[in-house]
Amino acid sequence: MLFKSIGKNFLISVIPKLIRYAKAFYMLIAEFFIMAVIGVDVGGHAIKAGIVTKKGTVLDKEVVLTEPEKGRETVVNNIINVIKDLLRIDKNISSIGIGVPGVVTRKGYISYTPNIPLANFDLGKAIRKKIRKKIIFGNDADNFALAKYHFGAGKSYETIVCLTLGTGIGSGIILKGKLFSKDGAPELGHMTIKYDGAKAKCCGNDGCIESYIGRKRFSRSPLEVYKKALAGNKQALKKFENYGKLLGVAISNFVNIFNPDAVILGGQMSNAYNLFRKTMEEEIKKRTIFKTRVVKSKMREAGMIGAAVLAF
Amino acid sequence: MLFKSIGKNFLISVIPKLIRYAKAFYMLIAEFFIMAVIGVDVGGHAIKAGIVTKKGTVLDKEVVLTEPEKGRETVVNNIINVIKDLLRIDKNISSIGIGVPGVVTRKGYISYTPNIPLANFDLGKAIRKKIRKKIIFGNDADNFALAKYHFGAGKSYETIVCLTLGTGIGSGIILKGKLFSKDGAPELGHMTIKYDGAKAKCCGNDGCIESYIGRKRFSRSPLEVYKKALAGNKQALKKFENYGKLLGVAISNFVNIFNPDAVILGGQMSNAYNLFRKTMEEEIKKRTIFKTRVVKSKMREAGMIGAAVLAF
Repeated sequence: MLFKSIGKNFLISVIPKLIRYAKAFYMLIAEFFIMAVIGVDVGGHAIKAGIVTKKGTVLDKEVVLTEPEKGRETVVNNIINVIKDLLRIDKNISSIGIGVPGVVTRKGYISYTPNIPLANFDLGKAIRKKIRKKIIFGNDADNFALAKYHFGAGKSYETIVCLTLGTGIGSGIILKGKLFSKDGAPELGHMTIKYDGAKAKCCGNDGCIESYIGRKRFSRSPLEVYKKALAGNKQALKKFENYGKLLGVAISNFVNIFNPDAVILGGQMSNAYNLFRKTMEEEIKKRTIFKTRVVKSKMREAGMIGAAVLAF
Repeated sequence: MLFKSIGKNFLISVIPKLIRYAKAFYMLIAEFFIMAVIGVDVGGHAIKAGIVTKKGTVLDKEVVLTEPEKGRETVVNNIINVIKDLLRIDKNISSIGIGVPGVVTRKGYISYTPNIPLANFDLGKAIRKKIRKKIIFGNDADNFALAKYHFGAGKSYETIVCLTLGTGIGSGIILKGKLFSKDGAPELGHMTIKYDGAKAKCCGNDGCIESYIGRKRFSRSPLEVYKKALAGNKQALKKFENYGKLLGVAISNFVNIFNPDAVILGGQMSNAYNLFRKTMEEEIKKRTIFKTRVVKSKMREAGMIGAAVLAF
């Protein structure tokens, strides 16, 4: 009788309860280990978005063209659509981090962005109209630094200077474990390294780094020059040697200012690392007061992962 | 009878108690308002020490020669003696802050100082042997920034870059209310502003600011050039114009990096501010991405007061 009653109770009330508790426990663990957010990296050419876990793993991703030439509305729609696509895959996601190449508030007001038609525009408001989630914005180079610091080459360091070498030179700085960012600063890409040097087309700052080693200085596309250099073309090799020398001067300045544990290089041009490494290191050795190490980033999707860090 | 008893009690026990309480209260207030420490600024030429209140007021001070040419022992004794003199004036002082032009730990180990024979030496230990008080060390340019931030021209700002223009160029940075300092950094004085420029005699960094506008670039003593300029000597005026231009290039770089609320100039050479101001401002206007203001420090004894801040 007693046994029967226990058996009945067990079936009717305890088992479903146990199942519920087990499920709750599983969800708790799952959330702890695989809680994911969406990270979006808005670039001049492409928008890269992904579902990123707390551990920095990209579970799923999508890349679409930015299409800046089609105007603001198209760009905004492209961003919204890529986020919606990812939200269809995982409906539980509650936060989204978005990186923009320019000066942006955490809420998404963009006061400056040179390569996309989103300057002086409240991108945050436009996206929130369509997507009712928590959305946080940040600068793309800052996000690169955050990704490096949390999951990448900067993981074991406290103070890092990150440079993204592309069309321009982006920069993000982590000082003693904290991102340093102030209304668009740091803007390391336009530091003067030769005050009476090349007339600036970018910032008004004659002889700035970017006017020397920005992608525009390569008379033809960098990829073409890169291929020629790999094939042994002396002129192409010389270009990368010079690139290394000037980048080395700039890095030395940053080292003397911040005394960083490491300088981390990313961006498209960093793929030619082996071609400019030697001259860069020579210059750094000669010019720095403090010791540091320069590391080439191996992390793919750093922009996307860094944007996700904003949302954690 | 009752009255008599109260009167007696009053005289015997209450009045002394009241006096004791009043005195304790007075001491509490006094301590709150005029708690003082000793601040010591060890320079290449002179040691300036003072009794400084929490409000940044110098109650008493003493200046002695550093005498670096007489060797380490003399310098150490000069520092100890000047502190002892001030302790004789106010025996209640329990903390001492000391600024050194070089790389120093908070406990007082000096790993680098170019102009005084105290490099690779535990100055803290040597002083503690003779003076049993709480003693904290810091870099002199950092202290200048602390003084500015707490009591001077930087008081109303959150992020400031301070430059001391003297024989060399010292630098201290307050970022969002906190001193940024890392094992000798920031070392802004040796930033390259012309990578193929003047051969460096200071840091190995060809074309660094200091090699352009350090005091050594003035063929005769700056004071003499200053007097000549004031008297209208064209060559002397030209020197200061050039000084302003190059300082402006350097300041622009710092502005683009830190986006500071203000840049504060101190040190002996800043006395010629009016002679180099115009060219400096022209250069800054041309080269900066962010807006800032440049302020000439009016605070006397900033090094001493900043050293005192360490001890509060």
